[in-house]
Amino acid sequence: MEIKSENTCFGGSQGVYTHASEVCGCDMTFGLFLPEAAQSGPVPVLWYLSGLTCTHENAMTKAAAQGWADEAGIALVFPDTSPRGEGVANDEAYDLGQGAGFYVNATQDPWKPHFRMWDYIADELPALLGAEFALDMDRQAITGHSMGGHGALTLAMGLPGRFRSLSAFAPIANPTKSDWGRKQFSAYLGGDEATWAKHDATLLMQQQGFDGPVLIDQGTNDQFLDLLKPEALAEAMAARLQEGAFRMQKGFDHSYFFMMSFMEEHVAFHAEALYA
Amino acid sequence: MEIKSENTCFGGSQGVYTHASEVCGCDMTFGLFLPEAAQSGPVPVLWYLSGLTCTHENAMTKAAAQGWADEAGIALVFPDTSPRGEGVANDEAYDLGQGAGFYVNATQDPWKPHFRMWDYIADELPALLGAEFALDMDRQAITGHSMGGHGALTLAMGLPGRFRSLSAFAPIANPTKSDWGRKQFSAYLGGDEATWAKHDATLLMQQQGFDGPVLIDQGTNDQFLDLLKPEALAEAMAARLQEGAFRMQKGFDHSYFFMMSFMEEHVAFHAEALYA
Repeated sequence: MEIKSENTCFGGSQGVYTHASEVCGCDMTFGLFLPEAAQSGPVPVLWYLSGLTCTHENAMTKAAAQGWADEAGIALVFPDTSPRGEGVANDEAYDLGQGAGFYVNATQDPWKPHFRMWDYIADELPALLGAEFALDMDRQAITGHSMGGHGALTLAMGLPGRFRSLSAFAPIANPTKSDWGRKQFSAYLGGDEATWAKHDATLLMQQQGFDGPVLIDQGTNDQFLDLLKPEALAEAMAARLQEGAFRMQKGFDHSYFFMMSFMEEHVAFHAEALYA
Repeated sequence: MEIKSENTCFGGSQGVYTHASEVCGCDMTFGLFLPEAAQSGPVPVLWYLSGLTCTHENAMTKAAAQGWADEAGIALVFPDTSPRGEGVANDEAYDLGQGAGFYVNATQDPWKPHFRMWDYIADELPALLGAEFALDMDRQAITGHSMGGHGALTLAMGLPGRFRSLSAFAPIANPTKSDWGRKQFSAYLGGDEATWAKHDATLLMQQQGFDGPVLIDQGTNDQFLDLLKPEALAEAMAARLQEGAFRMQKGFDHSYFFMMSFMEEHVAFHAEALYA
């Protein structure tokens, strides 16, 4: 593992690290904020999964989550959104290939050799984090934005017992019914739609739900409502009597100004679960 | 004036606007955050001047100042750092020309026709803001980072009575003695160093100071300490018995992680002066 940068940030440190990923077959970069509390012992971890076109950097520089995380005594992990580099397949479209991993393990060429973001986030990166940093991997929570909200929802429901709390900002909520989903699942997973189901938050919510609190924020002026399909997830949460809240936030759109505006509440929500 | 974007942000709105600048002889872009309080009447204004290589966008997306400004009922203005566009002179170096206006009125070719950032920030942009938005231009404050900290200090001391409070993050504090200053003043203002003096915060502090509170934050791990020369300004502030504080912040560097970490305190500092 190589240190790319470490900057003092609030009472703690914002680091960026690169490591050779066996799972993805390429170098992977991630951001990690360690709060001041990590100097006295292992701290719980909040994962932040980013959206289409993003890298590890966007939320780390734009959301100012570090201040709230430092106050709460929580580490923040900012993984990249796909494998990258020479020899890694790509596509001209912004929503396929590099920057658009969709948090699945590809089974189809040309994506199969590198696009294994599910295993990377579920297995390889947490093992590395637990070994290298003062983190209490028995206390994890997860959130994300847009495609990263999809990742947070599907990973949290797909790995029961792993995360204590789950939140998302404007998640891709029903990808098997959306052009943000059908296109990518066809490419990465192939035409058998049965293999898609475990990567659809609405279907997972209908079938099993999440054993803990869930917080979803969605802006009413989001320019991608037709692709996100929040109504499908809201209905599934209500039908299941899922503990938590689905909040429609008046006037907000899909930008980081939306995220920035509610980051304090999301960190506080996870802190309550992580320090319960 | 053209609206480039307006995004709901906390209780208010983050806008980006472009206008034809007579002073700079080109289109200029700025960001303006209006807090919720602006819906009920004019609010005071905090100027944020950015550093080398920055545009109007950096602080607007990276510092999360909007949350604190919304709470305090203060508007935030994020001007660009230079004229831009075709026909505007430029240089290959990152620290001269576009992105490096240094908040002066150039008197030398090829900079003279467009590089008039002092007049732009001192006169043209405030007039536009006062005419177009619900702002109380009798209550203004100013801050900035690095080259923008230099701009905040020199404009605030150079326009007595304009700003109620003044702060800076890691400002270029003594540019007439630094390669961040001598190079640019030579290019923009020519070889007569007498014309440079009113653009040097340390010299202005020695000669006149600021009629109000001043807050300076500087990181001890700043990679540009030799160029910033904080010790010169600190000495001048102390020698003048300038009201305010010069704070050395242990471990922090020159990045936006430093800014982000102290933004709450700077906004609160200005709010106290603006709502006194």
